[in-house]
Amino acid sequence: MEMSPLQKQRSLYRPELPPCLHGSNIHLDFGDATTVTDPLDAQSIQRSFPHTYGQPLVHFFHSPHATIPVAHSAKKKSPIRVGVVFCGRQSPGGHNVICGLHDAMKLHNPESTLIGFCGGTEGLFENKTIEITEDVVSAYINQGGYDMLGRTRDQVRTNEQIKAALNTCKALRLDGLVIIGGVTSNTDAAQLAETFAEAKCSTKVIGVPVTSYGDLRNQFVEANVGFDTVCKVNSQLISNLCTDALSAEKYYYFIRLMGRKTSHVTLECTLQSHPNMVILSEEVASSKLTLFDITKRICDAVQARAEKDKYHGVILLPEGLVESIPEVYALLQEIHDLLKKGVSVDSISTQLSPWASALYQSLPPFIKKQLLLSPDSDESAQLSQIETEKLLAQLVEAEMDARSKSGEYKGKKFNSICHFFGYQARGSLPSKFDCDYAYVLGHVSYHLVSAGVNGYMATATNLKNDVMKWRCGGAPLTAMMTVRRSLCGPGSSLVGKPSIHPVEVNLKGKAYELLVRNAEKFLMGDLYSNPGPHQYKGPGSCSKAISLSVEDQDYMGRVEEFQAYLEKVKSIVKPGCSQEVLKAALSTMASLVDILSLMSPAPKAHVV
Amino acid sequence: MEMSPLQKQRSLYRPELPPCLHGSNIHLDFGDATTVTDPLDAQSIQRSFPHTYGQPLVHFFHSPHATIPVAHSAKKKSPIRVGVVFCGRQSPGGHNVICGLHDAMKLHNPESTLIGFCGGTEGLFENKTIEITEDVVSAYINQGGYDMLGRTRDQVRTNEQIKAALNTCKALRLDGLVIIGGVTSNTDAAQLAETFAEAKCSTKVIGVPVTSYGDLRNQFVEANVGFDTVCKVNSQLISNLCTDALSAEKYYYFIRLMGRKTSHVTLECTLQSHPNMVILSEEVASSKLTLFDITKRICDAVQARAEKDKYHGVILLPEGLVESIPEVYALLQEIHDLLKKGVSVDSISTQLSPWASALYQSLPPFIKKQLLLSPDSDESAQLSQIETEKLLAQLVEAEMDARSKSGEYKGKKFNSICHFFGYQARGSLPSKFDCDYAYVLGHVSYHLVSAGVNGYMATATNLKNDVMKWRCGGAPLTAMMTVRRSLCGPGSSLVGKPSIHPVEVNLKGKAYELLVRNAEKFLMGDLYSNPGPHQYKGPGSCSKAISLSVEDQDYMGRVEEFQAYLEKVKSIVKPGCSQEVLKAALSTMASLVDILSLMSPAPKAHVV
Repeated sequence: MEMSPLQKQRSLYRPELPPCLHGSNIHLDFGDATTVTDPLDAQSIQRSFPHTYGQPLVHFFHSPHATIPVAHSAKKKSPIRVGVVFCGRQSPGGHNVICGLHDAMKLHNPESTLIGFCGGTEGLFENKTIEITEDVVSAYINQGGYDMLGRTRDQVRTNEQIKAALNTCKALRLDGLVIIGGVTSNTDAAQLAETFAEAKCSTKVIGVPVTSYGDLRNQFVEANVGFDTVCKVNSQLISNLCTDALSAEKYYYFIRLMGRKTSHVTLECTLQSHPNMVILSEEVASSKLTLFDITKRICDAVQARAEKDKYHGVILLPEGLVESIPEVYALLQEIHDLLKKGVSVDSISTQLSPWASALYQSLPPFIKKQLLLSPDSDESAQLSQIETEKLLAQLVEAEMDARSKSGEYKGKKFNSICHFFGYQARGSLPSKFDCDYAYVLGHVSYHLVSAGVNGYMATATNLKNDVMKWRCGGAPLTAMMTVRRSLCGPGSSLVGKPSIHPVEVNLKGKAYELLVRNAEKFLMGDLYSNPGPHQYKGPGSCSKAISLSVEDQDYMGRVEEFQAYLEKVKSIVKPGCSQEVLKAALSTMASLVDILSLMSPAPKAHVV
Repeated sequence: MEMSPLQKQRSLYRPELPPCLHGSNIHLDFGDATTVTDPLDAQSIQRSFPHTYGQPLVHFFHSPHATIPVAHSAKKKSPIRVGVVFCGRQSPGGHNVICGLHDAMKLHNPESTLIGFCGGTEGLFENKTIEITEDVVSAYINQGGYDMLGRTRDQVRTNEQIKAALNTCKALRLDGLVIIGGVTSNTDAAQLAETFAEAKCSTKVIGVPVTSYGDLRNQFVEANVGFDTVCKVNSQLISNLCTDALSAEKYYYFIRLMGRKTSHVTLECTLQSHPNMVILSEEVASSKLTLFDITKRICDAVQARAEKDKYHGVILLPEGLVESIPEVYALLQEIHDLLKKGVSVDSISTQLSPWASALYQSLPPFIKKQLLLSPDSDESAQLSQIETEKLLAQLVEAEMDARSKSGEYKGKKFNSICHFFGYQARGSLPSKFDCDYAYVLGHVSYHLVSAGVNGYMATATNLKNDVMKWRCGGAPLTAMMTVRRSLCGPGSSLVGKPSIHPVEVNLKGKAYELLVRNAEKFLMGDLYSNPGPHQYKGPGSCSKAISLSVEDQDYMGRVEEFQAYLEKVKSIVKPGCSQEVLKAALSTMASLVDILSLMSPAPKAHVV
């Protein structure tokens, strides 16, 4: 790698820290024990995680008094040894978690050692490491990608893998293991924490919420590292296409956005750049829209615009859309089941059920080939490879031609150009917000390891405000888990493993509400807005994701959530209910008290 | 359109002007009469452009004395009426030409009127206009796209169209018509200038070099508006993919870049971001590389990297590549000829010559379909629609599989992901350089109209340096023309119309030399460099295209060029040669004197 002038300048920047991380006296305050949001899941999670379930929330605060006795504050902490690993898909800002962790460790004791695992979890299993020194940090701070250490397929699935990780941590005498990743990797972190605790291994496991999909959100986690950058890069490109469309006035751009199953990236980009139309996976799933419905909806929009003499437009689609369309999802399930049974790709089409076969045969050849790809490691289809945008563009073209022939549509010929935006955003230099947020979480991770807690996620909240007002802490990973119950095959029901699941776009949330309120104006008015390339200095350098401003940190929203959970507790606690249900309900009440405390203004000790 | 905060900030910026455009006393200095670089073309061009051929170069300079007599300098110029039109594909910065033109007009006389033609040349033919006022300028200055006026197919081809343009200019009593576009549109501008002169129409026609392809370059024109921005946006995205490739270490990214027939954008992006490999159309054409050769070259690179345990990489391809491969070009010519004869798309494959048919049948279905598309307005294939990157990725995969089977290749499976970058860069907010350059050219256009010259291109040179050191002037459009002689069908030779032709990447130029010198290091060393998103303030906001720094303004290169032309003159002037050749040679000598004067340091009057 050769640094460009901008990269060199960026490498000189050290992010600020909030007051609770200033100085050498960081205080940790333990809250009440946590539980999970759905009391029905509590028992199952507790059974799977007996050592790490029910731990209290941790809040950091800066004690102003402690800075007075110099002798005390200058007292060095003991040196510690920490390992760090990138898990899952790269997300801009990931490097800064490591840089923050390094700087915090060296600040509190220069003898501490930070060890990076090379090539993701493979490096963890096989003890392939490098020591992360000041030189390494200087080369990667505020830069994109995960190339400081690399990554692999990154799962911790089998008992052999868990054992290998345990052996590595023991061999390296690690005090802490910091896992940087999204929902799957943080579930894996929880599993490692539990196994390590049971094996009386002294390595404490800490997870950090780093995923550009923005789907690791809950009452403890407001934002994910990388989401802000990816939305900004994509929004810039979408806006450029809006400008291009408006200049040439002859094309519809269909843009598919990376983001896995959920539509957070797509929603955020819509709010930043104001394209004409967007179709969210969550809307489709909730309204059970078919391919035909979606096509019709787009065609109606094209026709309405043509009546105003507009023959251009921009339409956003999340990559997860394909799986949210009920009949396509069912077809994919059949294909994946047949693949699992070892049926060869060439003969799958002959073994589909009659209706699935009919749907399959009706699709264009390119999409047939893509639907036959083996599923990804998380059991979902290979979303990045399935060109839903091309499928919809073709279906819309065919329908517009038909409407034209029948005389229903009298406008000019419909023309489309398709794009997929994903990899080009994922590898970007991180935005200032992601640089700061990741660096702060790196510091927080150090303090959590240093405090000896295990199975926690590093958190920073109040992110809508200046870094100086951020609050830091830790939340037990198990408190973010849910259990999914699903029908699997005829007649059999399956209770899933407790996991941290991706959170979908909340169709009752403020961000979606903002979209709905503007949908008609966006569709007809061409209110395109170009946030521009993300800036490091001057105007535009500090703005944060819109969804963070309107949704998270929204106390009213939290009150609603709080009330909904209370309602749930109320509904399950009935005459004659079991002791277990009562216990679960009590436990949820404790957790709700914690949410309430997060909602209330910070105690004075937290603010400088 | 709704302006984002960054867009609002940008709209407040007014680009600087070089000293020769300061104040109210701009002096124009006429040089010697120009001719064309190839003396053999002179006669043909003179015959086609009797009124506008052989006009002198124009240089602007600022007279410091003239500012002393206040009464004189405050003397207003007479109000003028100017029309302006966007021609051809949108290019970032285009709006600023209009904004600069507007500001210059109003500065010298607030009574002057600027009229914009809506929808490109269609607006010119049909007299569809808006008046461009201060309010319009405020909404579009420093913004991307062409949406202030829009554009259409934008050709001035038929006599009817030329007549329509003439009628419009007469009806509007225009003193000047400013045409913003690339090679084709500036050729059209020259034609309009000639026709207007012949018809004794008082409207003076001025062209402005605005094309993101960067292919309108010659001894008078150093750079094109939009090229800098497009290269910066693309380089950022390419760099992001380099970072992504290096992080995941499992994919080869094949990236096709928009740029029409020439590879300037691709070369520039390579120099900015250092991907592993690039294949330029000009190299392929010059070495007559076949599809097989190119595939083999990429496979050898993949294999060499695999031997160093590297399974990732980034490969750039210009969209024009497909037409530069000899056998594919010949196939395309056959297809286009059949289409011209009215053969239907479905039956073309049956009417190809045996070898063309064999090549066609060997190609994957998706590319077959794309090759059958009707040619673009400039007779070339629909380059943006032909996915050469997918074709090459498939051919490389097949060849690597074959090598694997034969035991020649022992590495891991080759995996690729394909991208096309074009529209998303073309619609970008312009870089600072493009904002400034376009705005200055707008001012220059005003002064050329005001001086009453006709058939000129507005120029600014010495662009490698600060705006304060730029030199401004005008060069006759006919002096940039060449005549192409080509074989067309068996036995018949065709002399083309005199035109400004796209200039190819100079394989003996400094920029290409820089690439060749680094090619091996780029291939094996992963020296990826990320210029980052383009910045408006602070570090990274002012750098210019590398090719501008290393190539243009390169006096040594110009000396070589000068010597080469001298050699040519020497070789044609022989005992017994015709009067015509002698005349052409003399004329070329005059032009060479002009080149020499451009090369020599500016006279004192030009520098403040």
